[in-house]
Amino acid sequence: MAGTDRRRTRLSGGPAIVLVEPQLGENIGTAARAMYNCGLTDLRLVKPRDGWPNKKAVAAASGADTVLDKARLYDSAEDAIADLRRVYATTARDRYMVKRILTPRFAASEMRQLVAARESCGILFGPERTGLVNEHIALAESVISMPLNPAFSSLNLAQAVLIVGYEWFAAGDETPPAQLATGHSKPATKERLIAFFEHLEEALDDSGFMRNAEKRPSMVRNLRNLFQRAQCTDQELRTLHGVVTSFVGPRKRKK
Amino acid sequence: MAGTDRRRTRLSGGPAIVLVEPQLGENIGTAARAMYNCGLTDLRLVKPRDGWPNKKAVAAASGADTVLDKARLYDSAEDAIADLRRVYATTARDRYMVKRILTPRFAASEMRQLVAARESCGILFGPERTGLVNEHIALAESVISMPLNPAFSSLNLAQAVLIVGYEWFAAGDETPPAQLATGHSKPATKERLIAFFEHLEEALDDSGFMRNAEKRPSMVRNLRNLFQRAQCTDQELRTLHGVVTSFVGPRKRKK
Repeated sequence: MAGTDRRRTRLSGGPAIVLVEPQLGENIGTAARAMYNCGLTDLRLVKPRDGWPNKKAVAAASGADTVLDKARLYDSAEDAIADLRRVYATTARDRYMVKRILTPRFAASEMRQLVAARESCGILFGPERTGLVNEHIALAESVISMPLNPAFSSLNLAQAVLIVGYEWFAAGDETPPAQLATGHSKPATKERLIAFFEHLEEALDDSGFMRNAEKRPSMVRNLRNLFQRAQCTDQELRTLHGVVTSFVGPRKRKK
Repeated sequence: MAGTDRRRTRLSGGPAIVLVEPQLGENIGTAARAMYNCGLTDLRLVKPRDGWPNKKAVAAASGADTVLDKARLYDSAEDAIADLRRVYATTARDRYMVKRILTPRFAASEMRQLVAARESCGILFGPERTGLVNEHIALAESVISMPLNPAFSSLNLAQAVLIVGYEWFAAGDETPPAQLATGHSKPATKERLIAFFEHLEEALDDSGFMRNAEKRPSMVRNLRNLFQRAQCTDQELRTLHGVVTSFVGPRKRKK
């Protein structure tokens, strides 16, 4: 999906993303893109199999160069996390360890609290084929496990980074869950809405549509409710007045 | 991330995923994989550019063949959504339309309610380069817009499908946000925990570590609090008893 977003959200120093022995340059690139989508920029690479820097990573990052340019290279996971105070390990399989298991959403709210308290944190992701080995999981206080289809939970590396990053971003985002975008026009006042109702009902009286006097009140109510649900703007009411006029000609009566 | 998941979550007929004029077979395949990760199986394709079926889609689906095999082909977006009662359009850019804009999370909870009431729903995704055209957005009641980094909100098609699908799955998932996995051993009773404390403190009395009588109570409290936080299991307490014994030999005193 192309484009940028007009919402304002504070981007702050989020968790480090630590890719342990990633295999494919493409996956490092798509993980960097997913990170930057979510406002994360601290990428750390532990022994990437195909060396670093990597052209395929740049091609796959689709413009998230700022993340790749700042990426740091390490010889061990221990070195990569040395400066962090809290580390999470991502796993899909149960490893039968005695360990806190968190949803990405819970971990994100915890990391927001850590970062607000100026404590550094990071998230370990394992190699594509195998995931993290148990020794690397033991470097972390907690495990993050994605709630996914139990019959098919295998995620691409960048997809795993995206879900964790998305939850991180959402935990700090103040976009209203549901809002009516009204473009360049404001929602109409009720006075203008009722003026349209009256125009429409006069026209329907004239056309004979509402000749059954007994049914008229419920018809009026139903039509009014329909247009109430549509939450029309001023601009749209002008269009609707024009639609009615185009059917029946200019209004003859005035109330 | 490899592996499957031991959690139980009810998979039910979720929203249809409608890809309008997708360009690359690979992206159809990775979108199908993301769908199946999230328990979604109703894939609808409107005029895929490179034809259908598509070998690259199968390769990229990494085993989500069940989604591709059931995918249906349509000549227009109108045909693809004809049987649906509620349609959402995904967009990244503001289109200046008068339209409800929802977060993926809000839309997911709404779709869960629709599906529970046996009402069909679906989500439109546009071509990779351009996104949905405005005419296709006007086929939907509401728009879903992802909260992402405003400076870099361009998502790959499969990433967009994953976020919407992930929220759909999470809205029906009952995984506890945080839990302590204890493997094959249960969390220890406090009686056993206190027995370990006493063993450790006796050993430290003998070794001379707690010879400062004034500081002893606070040292005891600090060590006890540390091991309380670790929430040890029976198995781990046995290990810790062994560790202490290995340092100071078998216990001499009994209380």
